[in-house]
Amino acid sequence: MLLRLRKNSSPTEVEAVFTVARALGYEPRILDRGGVLVELLPGGPSDVPRAAHRSRFEDQSAVETVLESSDAPELHEREAGREETRVEIGAAAFGAGAFSLVAGPCAVEDPDRLIEIARSVHAAGAVLLRGGAFKPRTSPWSFQGQGRSALAALAAAREATGLGIVTEVLDPRDVEAVAEVADMLQIGSRSMSNTVLLTECARSGRPVLLKRGLAATGREFLLAAECVLANGNENVVLCERGIRGFDNVTRNVLDVGMVAWLKLKTHLPVVVDPSHAAGRADLVLPLAKAGVAAGADGVIVEVHPEPAEVHSDGAQALSFDAFAELARGVRRLAQLEGKTPVLPPERIDAKEVMR
Amino acid sequence: MLLRLRKNSSPTEVEAVFTVARALGYEPRILDRGGVLVELLPGGPSDVPRAAHRSRFEDQSAVETVLESSDAPELHEREAGREETRVEIGAAAFGAGAFSLVAGPCAVEDPDRLIEIARSVHAAGAVLLRGGAFKPRTSPWSFQGQGRSALAALAAAREATGLGIVTEVLDPRDVEAVAEVADMLQIGSRSMSNTVLLTECARSGRPVLLKRGLAATGREFLLAAECVLANGNENVVLCERGIRGFDNVTRNVLDVGMVAWLKLKTHLPVVVDPSHAAGRADLVLPLAKAGVAAGADGVIVEVHPEPAEVHSDGAQALSFDAFAELARGVRRLAQLEGKTPVLPPERIDAKEVMR
Amino acid sequence: MLLRLRKNSSPTEVEAVFTVARALGYEPRILDRGGVLVELLPGGPSDVPRAAHRSRFEDQSAVETVLESSDAPELHEREAGREETRVEIGAAAFGAGAFSLVAGPCAVEDPDRLIEIARSVHAAGAVLLRGGAFKPRTSPWSFQGQGRSALAALAAAREATGLGIVTEVLDPRDVEAVAEVADMLQIGSRSMSNTVLLTECARSGRPVLLKRGLAATGREFLLAAECVLANGNENVVLCERGIRGFDNVTRNVLDVGMVAWLKLKTHLPVVVDPSHAAGRADLVLPLAKAGVAAGADGVIVEVHPEPAEVHSDGAQALSFDAFAELARGVRRLAQLEGKTPVLPPERIDAKEVMR
Amino acid sequence: MLLRLRKNSSPTEVEAVFTVARALGYEPRILDRGGVLVELLPGGPSDVPRAAHRSRFEDQSAVETVLESSDAPELHEREAGREETRVEIGAAAFGAGAFSLVAGPCAVEDPDRLIEIARSVHAAGAVLLRGGAFKPRTSPWSFQGQGRSALAALAAAREATGLGIVTEVLDPRDVEAVAEVADMLQIGSRSMSNTVLLTECARSGRPVLLKRGLAATGREFLLAAECVLANGNENVVLCERGIRGFDNVTRNVLDVGMVAWLKLKTHLPVVVDPSHAAGRADLVLPLAKAGVAAGADGVIVEVHPEPAEVHSDGAQALSFDAFAELARGVRRLAQLEGKTPVLPPERIDAKEVMR
Repeated sequence: MLLRLRKNSSPTEVEAVFTVARALGYEPRILDRGGVLVELLPGGPSDVPRAAHRSRFEDQSAVETVLESSDAPELHEREAGREETRVEIGAAAFGAGAFSLVAGPCAVEDPDRLIEIARSVHAAGAVLLRGGAFKPRTSPWSFQGQGRSALAALAAAREATGLGIVTEVLDPRDVEAVAEVADMLQIGSRSMSNTVLLTECARSGRPVLLKRGLAATGREFLLAAECVLANGNENVVLCERGIRGFDNVTRNVLDVGMVAWLKLKTHLPVVVDPSHAAGRADLVLPLAKAGVAAGADGVIVEVHPEPAEVHSDGAQALSFDAFAELARGVRRLAQLEGKTPVLPPERIDAKEVMR
Repeated sequence: MLLRLRKNSSPTEVEAVFTVARALGYEPRILDRGGVLVELLPGGPSDVPRAAHRSRFEDQSAVETVLESSDAPELHEREAGREETRVEIGAAAFGAGAFSLVAGPCAVEDPDRLIEIARSVHAAGAVLLRGGAFKPRTSPWSFQGQGRSALAALAAAREATGLGIVTEVLDPRDVEAVAEVADMLQIGSRSMSNTVLLTECARSGRPVLLKRGLAATGREFLLAAECVLANGNENVVLCERGIRGFDNVTRNVLDVGMVAWLKLKTHLPVVVDPSHAAGRADLVLPLAKAGVAAGADGVIVEVHPEPAEVHSDGAQALSFDAFAELARGVRRLAQLEGKTPVLPPERIDAKEVMR
Repeated sequence: MLLRLRKNSSPTEVEAVFTVARALGYEPRILDRGGVLVELLPGGPSDVPRAAHRSRFEDQSAVETVLESSDAPELHEREAGREETRVEIGAAAFGAGAFSLVAGPCAVEDPDRLIEIARSVHAAGAVLLRGGAFKPRTSPWSFQGQGRSALAALAAAREATGLGIVTEVLDPRDVEAVAEVADMLQIGSRSMSNTVLLTECARSGRPVLLKRGLAATGREFLLAAECVLANGNENVVLCERGIRGFDNVTRNVLDVGMVAWLKLKTHLPVVVDPSHAAGRADLVLPLAKAGVAAGADGVIVEVHPEPAEVHSDGAQALSFDAFAELARGVRRLAQLEGKTPVLPPERIDAKEVMR
Repeated sequence: MLLRLRKNSSPTEVEAVFTVARALGYEPRILDRGGVLVELLPGGPSDVPRAAHRSRFEDQSAVETVLESSDAPELHEREAGREETRVEIGAAAFGAGAFSLVAGPCAVEDPDRLIEIARSVHAAGAVLLRGGAFKPRTSPWSFQGQGRSALAALAAAREATGLGIVTEVLDPRDVEAVAEVADMLQIGSRSMSNTVLLTECARSGRPVLLKRGLAATGREFLLAAECVLANGNENVVLCERGIRGFDNVTRNVLDVGMVAWLKLKTHLPVVVDPSHAAGRADLVLPLAKAGVAAGADGVIVEVHPEPAEVHSDGAQALSFDAFAELARGVRRLAQLEGKTPVLPPERIDAKEVMR
């Protein structure tokens, strides 16, 4: 490991770094005359898990940055030789060559309508149904989702189609109830740094779909995933959904460079959400394709038969036909990238989908 | 009220807007040939609180934006003639001409050390003691704060100095326990959009110090405050603490324009946190002054006698002497701005502080 | 046309808007009680070109924004029914279904080396050779390019391969000399708003490759293009090359949403520069693919046989093999998007390239 | 000097760094086992000016960053013991304790009007008159300024009031003509990276007011100043005028942290432009104060008696009375910061201004 210290650290601060280093089983030595570069040579054992070492040094006020930590990898890191993680949820699979489509309404509203949507996206090739029971809204006066009652509608839609369910959870006290129904728990963009919620979701044992925060760096995103992994849950799918930008031609800026970078840095699967990035239906298809071309292992989109009735984010939902077109397009791209698109289990005519 | 509709809305979507309008007691009429501008004339009464009207329209997929809503103000809005809200916590007071200083360590570590800090900042003129019991950390392997045991140390420091206590709460399940000890609850930057937590804090009845999210717009910030107000708690202090920028000369960009804008738009008090904005001790003083010159009703800073021992954010903590200098400087500025700096109750020599 | 006025405009300011409107041949009328919405009905003729009408209103201090301007389109706008512009430079063609690859070194250094690179990228399927004679550098002490002497090297490389030449011009006084040699003039990211330079380049008659500024909005980007079009030059290719972001996993954030949006809004062709966006060679391929999947009509990349000798931006240059792989990959993607990749004229074995 | 190399540099690349180091008179040695840290010990002399050394290393593809360069300072750096530079333009002075106010219209329009404004801002205490002859506009169809004819109006206003003139220059071919009239040349925000223009302005011998680019980092800003200094012109005043942000409550985000940081890093004076940052008149005063409290050596604002007639940026111009209030407020603040506000030479009643 290699540390860069802050230039103006006091002797006490530097000594604190050395003490931590020795406690973690390293032999520290200063490299340069300025005394800001510290090399840590592996020495004896320590009780602290290796994945925690980097953060222990980052905790020290004298440490400006950990320059290199390849000898104490964190749990999310893709070490040399390590295979990609494949996360499986029923028929769906993400990563290690598997590619899946997730679709559904922004918020669950009417149970019959939800089944209609589920059947349509199933027919077009989605393998997971998304739908919000609890909605994170900016205004306290806005529609907040139907809450626990929507969970029953999601369960019924699964019953009708065989599609697994992904739904967002906002309150750590709801995790148990949601995990009883959902096949995968979504941590929304605004909750990415909510370690309380991340920990509860991790402990539920359900796979976690983790959305990137609106202004989260790559390291912050990976450390949120690390929080799930560190709590014993290995099934994390990362979702790039656009970052806050300075223009309004799209609602957010889909960061395809992040997708490509994540594929190098972590063994976890990565998907894109072009609906929230675009904020408008007519740009969802090109953004979905861009994400897949950059290396995404799946796509998650909003679909609704009748945007007029949507309580939230209607302008970005795709019609049934538009979703079917998107599904065909991105599957073809995924295949070009050497991936295998997963198809729904009870497809009557899988060939037609793949044409 | 005046709405702008999206250009491509379907007739069903537009009809939905009209239905909502009539249910809220308005007479809607379209203004332009393009059919995108809808004026809502006040008509009959409605059961929905007026503060909720704007959001009900924003919920509609056909509505691009609410152009004007002066006839249905939200709770945070500063209507013509409305006085500023003054939030009082023990001796401390923010807003409506009152100016207060908040200081303390980033995280509570040692009870005796905390009392030492509390006495020092009290002597320099702070009227509230800040200190983290629960720390929001990026890495799961980092020091997370001492949790509930730190609350006792905070209580002891209050006992010793008479200073009120501000501390952050992260988990809605902790709100009750924290509210028993703390005089004011802090909602951190990463939790600004955590409406579950905002609601619990609001219901505790304690005043709330609400920090702006790292990439939150002014409207999002005010709607987070609205969430506390809408739950019956009128004591909200807004805190600008820097937004994410593209450079690293400071850790974040202190947005003094936001401070000035908030003072125009809302009746709630506004403070600045120069420590988190600067991320380095040598820029805390100029940023504190800039915030006050822009209109802030108070300043919150990190203070520590010995940065070497700090588990988090040591590089930005001020020494006792540096804080005393800052306190004198910003009080003088606040007076120049026509504000009255509040002094701690049991000051032995208040005059000395004000020299 | 539809205008939104600022709320606090003075009567004189509003009157000025009406005067301008009438001079341009419109009948203005106020739509709402608040007096902020003005509809302009087409009336008599005016001497000012229609493309200038929108800006004339934006010039007025009382005008907050032009809501709609479909009746006075600017030159870059893609009106209903209008076909895409195809820009042709020798064998290369961009837009209206044509797709081209541009490659070469960041800066021209050694004439023999340049010919070696030109032959290699030609063999791999590039149809234009890029290479900087004048380099825009951040520090005055950095290598600034070889200037006019590099132009001869570029001409020799064209002689040897038949590839057209694209090179950046920085000084309006150099335009004439550069245009004598170059087949296409590049306006770099830092010069996007340099209207003096845009005007000179436009007047040279050479096609212009216009790079988006580091923090330019879509509207600003299109108005820079408008500046070339308004000076009588219709051959503008827009280049998305990444915007400034808050993270450093890539040097800039390739904004694929902008690519997709531009394809809707303008008839001009759009290309992507994944080299400057990534800032590191290992992410150039996925970003190139993402750009093409989002709708780009071409890709421009940096190629160098021996990054060790590169004076600028070496870390992002592709090797010859890596470029050949990229060329195959993006051509296949372009075909999937229904475009026709243009191949270099004197290709010995075009089929091999397309396999 | 201390360099960090890129991890994957080739031996040739690393050797190139060593060759450059020796040519510049250093003895290089690798510090760590990873071979990424290179210390350069001062050795023999070199013909290259020391200020250029840092950039020579940054030019090398193997160099990721120069960690420390205190032994080869660039011209803008504030070395230990070095005094601040004071830039003087007629009666005006910036830096080293001197504080000046600059005011005037956005664009010069009518000569008589300009004199009226000049007299008013002179009476209120401005010591330089700003006014655009050439306007950098986003749209080619917008009002571009009156060009050279406006220079005569500026000269007449100087004649009438004794105020020095600051005006922007956009085209390197205009520098000579503008420098004949103007006392100080302004490099606008869009031109900050225009090294062609920077070089011409430097060579004119006139003091330069350099505005920060909309998304320029601190280092980029200082290197633009370095470009003027390296061309033999020591009179540069840096101007923070707001950076591009994600919200629209202000047009740009006034970066007071940059002001404070610049005051630590460079000996050059720093001023703020609150008019362009705010984009609205009602926030100009608090932003001006914030800039001064953060350490600015001056303020530059737009003033106009009748915003209705303004061709550009009218909404942000201050009235005469508002400017007089601002002048009083910021002078008081500057004095509190230990600075001496410079007053115009022919003030009839200087005491009244200072009350």
